[in-house]
Amino acid sequence: MLKTVVMKFGGSSVADTDKILRVAQRVVASKKKGNHVVVVVSAPGDMTDDLLQMAEKITRLPSERELDMLLSTGEQVSIALLSMAIHSLSVDAVSLTGPQAGIHADANHTRARITKILPSKIQEELSKGKVVIVAGFQGINPNQDITTLGRGGSDLTAVALAAALRASSCEIYTDVTGVYTTDPRVALKARKLSRISYDEMLEMAGAGSQVMQARSIEVAKKFDVELQVRSTFSEEEGTWVVKEVKRMEEVVVSGIAFDKNQAKLSIVEVQDSPGVAAKIFGALAQSRINVDMIIQSAARDRANSISFTVARTDLKKAVPLLQKVSRELGAKGIVCEEKVAKVAIVGVGMRSHPGVAAQMFQTLADGKINIEMISTSEIKVACVIKESNCDRAVRLLHRSFGLDYDSKKKS
Amino acid sequence: MLKTVVMKFGGSSVADTDKILRVAQRVVASKKKGNHVVVVVSAPGDMTDDLLQMAEKITRLPSERELDMLLSTGEQVSIALLSMAIHSLSVDAVSLTGPQAGIHADANHTRARITKILPSKIQEELSKGKVVIVAGFQGINPNQDITTLGRGGSDLTAVALAAALRASSCEIYTDVTGVYTTDPRVALKARKLSRISYDEMLEMAGAGSQVMQARSIEVAKKFDVELQVRSTFSEEEGTWVVKEVKRMEEVVVSGIAFDKNQAKLSIVEVQDSPGVAAKIFGALAQSRINVDMIIQSAARDRANSISFTVARTDLKKAVPLLQKVSRELGAKGIVCEEKVAKVAIVGVGMRSHPGVAAQMFQTLADGKINIEMISTSEIKVACVIKESNCDRAVRLLHRSFGLDYDSKKKS
Repeated sequence: MLKTVVMKFGGSSVADTDKILRVAQRVVASKKKGNHVVVVVSAPGDMTDDLLQMAEKITRLPSERELDMLLSTGEQVSIALLSMAIHSLSVDAVSLTGPQAGIHADANHTRARITKILPSKIQEELSKGKVVIVAGFQGINPNQDITTLGRGGSDLTAVALAAALRASSCEIYTDVTGVYTTDPRVALKARKLSRISYDEMLEMAGAGSQVMQARSIEVAKKFDVELQVRSTFSEEEGTWVVKEVKRMEEVVVSGIAFDKNQAKLSIVEVQDSPGVAAKIFGALAQSRINVDMIIQSAARDRANSISFTVARTDLKKAVPLLQKVSRELGAKGIVCEEKVAKVAIVGVGMRSHPGVAAQMFQTLADGKINIEMISTSEIKVACVIKESNCDRAVRLLHRSFGLDYDSKKKS
Repeated sequence: MLKTVVMKFGGSSVADTDKILRVAQRVVASKKKGNHVVVVVSAPGDMTDDLLQMAEKITRLPSERELDMLLSTGEQVSIALLSMAIHSLSVDAVSLTGPQAGIHADANHTRARITKILPSKIQEELSKGKVVIVAGFQGINPNQDITTLGRGGSDLTAVALAAALRASSCEIYTDVTGVYTTDPRVALKARKLSRISYDEMLEMAGAGSQVMQARSIEVAKKFDVELQVRSTFSEEEGTWVVKEVKRMEEVVVSGIAFDKNQAKLSIVEVQDSPGVAAKIFGALAQSRINVDMIIQSAARDRANSISFTVARTDLKKAVPLLQKVSRELGAKGIVCEEKVAKVAIVGVGMRSHPGVAAQMFQTLADGKINIEMISTSEIKVACVIKESNCDRAVRLLHRSFGLDYDSKKKS
């Protein structure tokens, strides 16, 4: 039986017809190696944004069902054009929308979850020797409506298809050559990792790395789908995302992630009684504001301060909501710090190396960078600092944990 | 039971978000009269052309299946945006793609025929009080692929839906206020008709009138769907297209149609033997070149001339084909006249009025306009003339048959 390979190309890879033709060449090269090839594509370049703008011109609050009807056309344009481009290279190909490809999702428009994949149509076309091109980001719900899968939806389509088809690998093509120890635009000495574990990749995504959304990494981990993140426009080997990374030399920290789209909010002197946190975070959740780190300061006279971070883009929505909750709870008031950033060190090596967090705090202290909040997991330490210190903190930590390119360490 | 009204809006009516909002207002007004409203829309403005251009940049001969996958996104954008616009006016609406609306078509990509309509989903949504917005021009074929219905496809969708839903009327909204006795840009004294019969409308379409394609008029006639052609941007009553037009005063000619996209081709001195015409027109048909008028001149020494007209846009394809056929048949050669036009008078009154053709020929003769070819039907006389004479011929015939606005005739 032939190997099945899933190749996923993002919007920047299919932004214009020239790029689509280059993608077609890559696909054909993989097909000619004797693989069954399934390709997942996103909407071309800015098309999704253009469509959203049209919708916003019509109404401030478009229906989510109709938004999905609108946005799903973007990927449909990509699959048709890519199929034509592959035909022009004399290889047979067929495009399938999410619904045609058997991607079933739940009824949560604009952020649906994949419920099941029935890949019989894909398998039928593969067995005819065709390259199968599937529209990412979309599926069909129980009401036979088109739904979209939310941010990172095309990655999710690719990973879920790779799992359903028991593909030998899932290649995520993007405009960078792989996963780096940190963003090379911030730290020139950032190195590309040849391998990274699902868990590390998940923590990196959670801490602000833009390479892949956490959802698709979770699915890849759950179904043991080996991912390769690599560049559309270079032959260079990318980064493998795998179950376990066995390294010759134990590396404690694999990467430094950061997120500048952060703001910190505090409710000051709020009553320390049961249900207070539920009230605050319930209100935020109802308005779909994601809360990241939460710190409750030590009780003093039965009154607490509760601080937490939100995406800075959610701040406008969060402040009036929180003021209302603050009044209702009889708290002293709220404090808002708009320009903070989160910096995190991530690495499975932490499990067996004590003192990693201490080294991080010391490095920041040596750099005179004040830490405002701390959160940890088994393989991650994250700190909230002033945004103005973020880039410097990343570079200091990158050097301190031996990740700089000239330190000759191999990952 | 509520009356069901089908409203169809062409691409120019939904070319931008402002226009879409105006269309929404018209739809809501009709809904508020207490009708069940089904809306059919085309792709916005130039979107179909833009998509075609992208396809052409990728390959000169795009797969027709993929072309349908690509082009069908245009209507999908329109239905989603229009549905949002109707929501913004506080009326419930739901958009359906052609496949979702139950429009089944055959497997001829880019020019499919509707095979059946299963409108249960539409009826279900109507019964919930929703305006149902259907993507024109598209359907699903037996292979579960998206197909498109070819030129005038959205009109066809509207008429076929009106028939399937037993709608009380089908309103075709366009950028003109109705069907005119002839093109007002050519004859200033053209009048809008309040009523016209299917047969006349069919002949007008066949003779070059751009208002509606013959296919949808045929379906309307077959299923007795009363059409009204009217303007999107004016409240003015349009033109009704109906089974039979009863007029107080018998009008012989209802309209003058013309078509300037015509060219004349002749094969000179070709052998007069069985199968010659089949050979010539078979070759053209294979290359999908439509032939309009055909004239075979009287045999002389067992050699004929065969002349016919084609769309001028097909000329480049037709000439080399015909040269080949001419050589194979041992004919003397071919003659091509690029710039001819067809002018036709149309009217059911002709059936009972002899001498109408003679009046047409005399009018053209008085204007020193030479007639190169003639073709007639029961309710139409068409002449091929030099293109340079076309506008003048239209005005002369318009006056001669009493259609000029100042002649006070009512249609």
